[in-house]
Amino acid sequence: MTPALARRLTAEAIGSFFLFAGVIGSGVMAEGLAQGNDALALLANTIATGAVLYVLIAMLGPISGAHFNPAVTLAFALRRELPPRDASLYVAVQLGAGVLGAFAVHLMFDMEILQFSTKARAGIGQSTGEFVATFGLVLTILVLLRTRAEAIPAGVALYITAAYWFTSSTSFANPAITVVRSLSDSFAGIAPADVPGFVLAQLAGTIAATALAGWLVGPPEEAP
Amino acid sequence: MTPALARRLTAEAIGSFFLFAGVIGSGVMAEGLAQGNDALALLANTIATGAVLYVLIAMLGPISGAHFNPAVTLAFALRRELPPRDASLYVAVQLGAGVLGAFAVHLMFDMEILQFSTKARAGIGQSTGEFVATFGLVLTILVLLRTRAEAIPAGVALYITAAYWFTSSTSFANPAITVVRSLSDSFAGIAPADVPGFVLAQLAGTIAATALAGWLVGPPEEAP
Amino acid sequence: MTPALARRLTAEAIGSFFLFAGVIGSGVMAEGLAQGNDALALLANTIATGAVLYVLIAMLGPISGAHFNPAVTLAFALRRELPPRDASLYVAVQLGAGVLGAFAVHLMFDMEILQFSTKARAGIGQSTGEFVATFGLVLTILVLLRTRAEAIPAGVALYITAAYWFTSSTSFANPAITVVRSLSDSFAGIAPADVPGFVLAQLAGTIAATALAGWLVGPPEEAP
Amino acid sequence: MTPALARRLTAEAIGSFFLFAGVIGSGVMAEGLAQGNDALALLANTIATGAVLYVLIAMLGPISGAHFNPAVTLAFALRRELPPRDASLYVAVQLGAGVLGAFAVHLMFDMEILQFSTKARAGIGQSTGEFVATFGLVLTILVLLRTRAEAIPAGVALYITAAYWFTSSTSFANPAITVVRSLSDSFAGIAPADVPGFVLAQLAGTIAATALAGWLVGPPEEAP
Repeated sequence: MTPALARRLTAEAIGSFFLFAGVIGSGVMAEGLAQGNDALALLANTIATGAVLYVLIAMLGPISGAHFNPAVTLAFALRRELPPRDASLYVAVQLGAGVLGAFAVHLMFDMEILQFSTKARAGIGQSTGEFVATFGLVLTILVLLRTRAEAIPAGVALYITAAYWFTSSTSFANPAITVVRSLSDSFAGIAPADVPGFVLAQLAGTIAATALAGWLVGPPEEAP
Repeated sequence: MTPALARRLTAEAIGSFFLFAGVIGSGVMAEGLAQGNDALALLANTIATGAVLYVLIAMLGPISGAHFNPAVTLAFALRRELPPRDASLYVAVQLGAGVLGAFAVHLMFDMEILQFSTKARAGIGQSTGEFVATFGLVLTILVLLRTRAEAIPAGVALYITAAYWFTSSTSFANPAITVVRSLSDSFAGIAPADVPGFVLAQLAGTIAATALAGWLVGPPEEAP
Repeated sequence: MTPALARRLTAEAIGSFFLFAGVIGSGVMAEGLAQGNDALALLANTIATGAVLYVLIAMLGPISGAHFNPAVTLAFALRRELPPRDASLYVAVQLGAGVLGAFAVHLMFDMEILQFSTKARAGIGQSTGEFVATFGLVLTILVLLRTRAEAIPAGVALYITAAYWFTSSTSFANPAITVVRSLSDSFAGIAPADVPGFVLAQLAGTIAATALAGWLVGPPEEAP
Repeated sequence: MTPALARRLTAEAIGSFFLFAGVIGSGVMAEGLAQGNDALALLANTIATGAVLYVLIAMLGPISGAHFNPAVTLAFALRRELPPRDASLYVAVQLGAGVLGAFAVHLMFDMEILQFSTKARAGIGQSTGEFVATFGLVLTILVLLRTRAEAIPAGVALYITAAYWFTSSTSFANPAITVVRSLSDSFAGIAPADVPGFVLAQLAGTIAATALAGWLVGPPEEAP
């Protein structure tokens, strides 16, 4: 492995660790303080998630592209902007570092390190939610890259900020975080049995958005 | 239709779909979680709306101008910066894609797809609210275009963020979203009978703001 | 009056109208919805105020400097960057347009147009609050102008966002808005008898900040 | 002392005063208004803290580097970008001006000027929280400096915004603010006996992050 690839994978690891810890940890903190008011808990969870996304993409984007998300990695692989081997390594690192992020949250909040969520998230409405959420996320990234690349950190952060609220599934929009959230029996969790349905909808949304973006702003080589 | 125009209309469609779904969907989610506290529901609705507006304008502005709003399209037509035929197509697409956005929300949240709002929004106070809200929105866009064009995504997003709270009507400021919100019997809805009063006030605000901006920063050809 | 000065005064009028309407209107809306929870009401009031400040400064700064505040106008007059006659006109316009902003809020929310606040705001703690709030605001503007001028819209908006919470007086930091808020018997109001104490503290903070900034980043002519 | 060093220390003093007053004051205000809902109180505290951080770093960064934090000063000293004598003066000023910030809050809110917190914050979970929080903060600063330096004000502000929620300790991440917060018996306080544990964890996080950043983006002299 070249030092450059090692640095890129390290950036993906740092970003996935802090993103997943940010999402799960802020859910734990918010649920613990909100006295049963889920709107307030989700609002705090939303603000923390959007904030950490901005920071991580701004700081690590120039190093690894700041995916932290197999759906995004898949989109770039489909566009042939990332070789399959690098894409596989990205996904492995996202999952591995993300799991550590969940464990770190459990350690910080004095919870059992290894746990499984019991929160059911299934049905047509939830699947549609994940399709819409991931479609919008991938479209945002691929279009912004062509039309206003410097706005990607703010754009992705604010897209997720909104999608937490306008999709019925609260917008996981990321297969790796879906798997990792099944390992936390807390506000942001998802029952392991419901993970495959979410991931399938996310992959479908990714493919649809990559196709639309290809037409709207052209393949990687062309200017829009 | 030229490919360029097809792309511009597609951008208007994507933006209107996600903007209208964002406004209505976050209203549904917020009302469902807020335990009857309308300040908390409106706060979540506000943050989601501002966030999605920023993203959509940043990513699609360079393609279509990112109107997503017949009032904005009218302002540019009045300034002769958009031919009447293009303006008509913009408005048709905004309405059509916006309706699909509302339907997608209803599908995601397991609600009846076709429904009508029963929320009354009328009276002198509400009409004044829509006049002020739209006047301010159009003025923001036309002045920022001359004085700090790169700030339009943040400027429009934050203008609406504020106007949700300082106008009595919670600032629809958009004839297309007014029509589409009448098709959702939820937090962000408006009874169909109250739509014409809102739209008239919005058009009056648009015309007044276009006139003032023309004097303040000059017609399209001049520098300020 | 030259057309350029007329445009600058118009910009001050638009900004003061929307800023003061934004502060007072969002207070009315928030108080009406928050079911007696003042933390939630102040949070909504804060977000709306910060948002509208960003927009108005971004769009109107290049035209008039975007003061909307006699304390800021005084600081520039003390630095001899604004002639006394222009400064007087600025202040007159800020007050006049600001009063119209309060009246517009009362019209939108179906309240009595002319009213007086009954909210007592006085004492050493509150005066210290206004001194600190205005000192920080003027320092922010004068230092940012030298060190990162393009960040002034976000900087001022976020300074006030914070100062609403860390000063005991919720940071009026503006003599004109203090007078105008005495004309609204609502969340953001202040009893007329308490206005002079606030204004004196604001002027003292302005003078202290102008002196400190003069030493820290130099007079207008010098680079820092 | 040269005038340039005097200006840098003054910038550190202004920033530490307003940052520490911002954190503590917004905690006092939020706790006073939130009717016992700690999620709402922490949300207001978070927004005020993030907002004031952005402003202070944007305006004072070009003068002193805008540390306001001995952990950040230590990181730059370890990288040999700040001489030990300057670093000592920075830390002394951060502590001194920060104490004045706490006293100013107590004066503004009509509280006893000199007080000690009684809020216990200890244990493995809290120490891990401070290690993670400070590790992330220092990494954010050192990496952003190389990859997107103009995003440091927003990046640091949003990192802390998120970390208030995803760490169990609410992310003090600053030895000086930890000491000063022990001098305020309010929402943001920490019992004096728990200060050393927090500071040790913060220093460990600083050293670990400085080492990782050195490998990821290289020493000061190299481009990444």
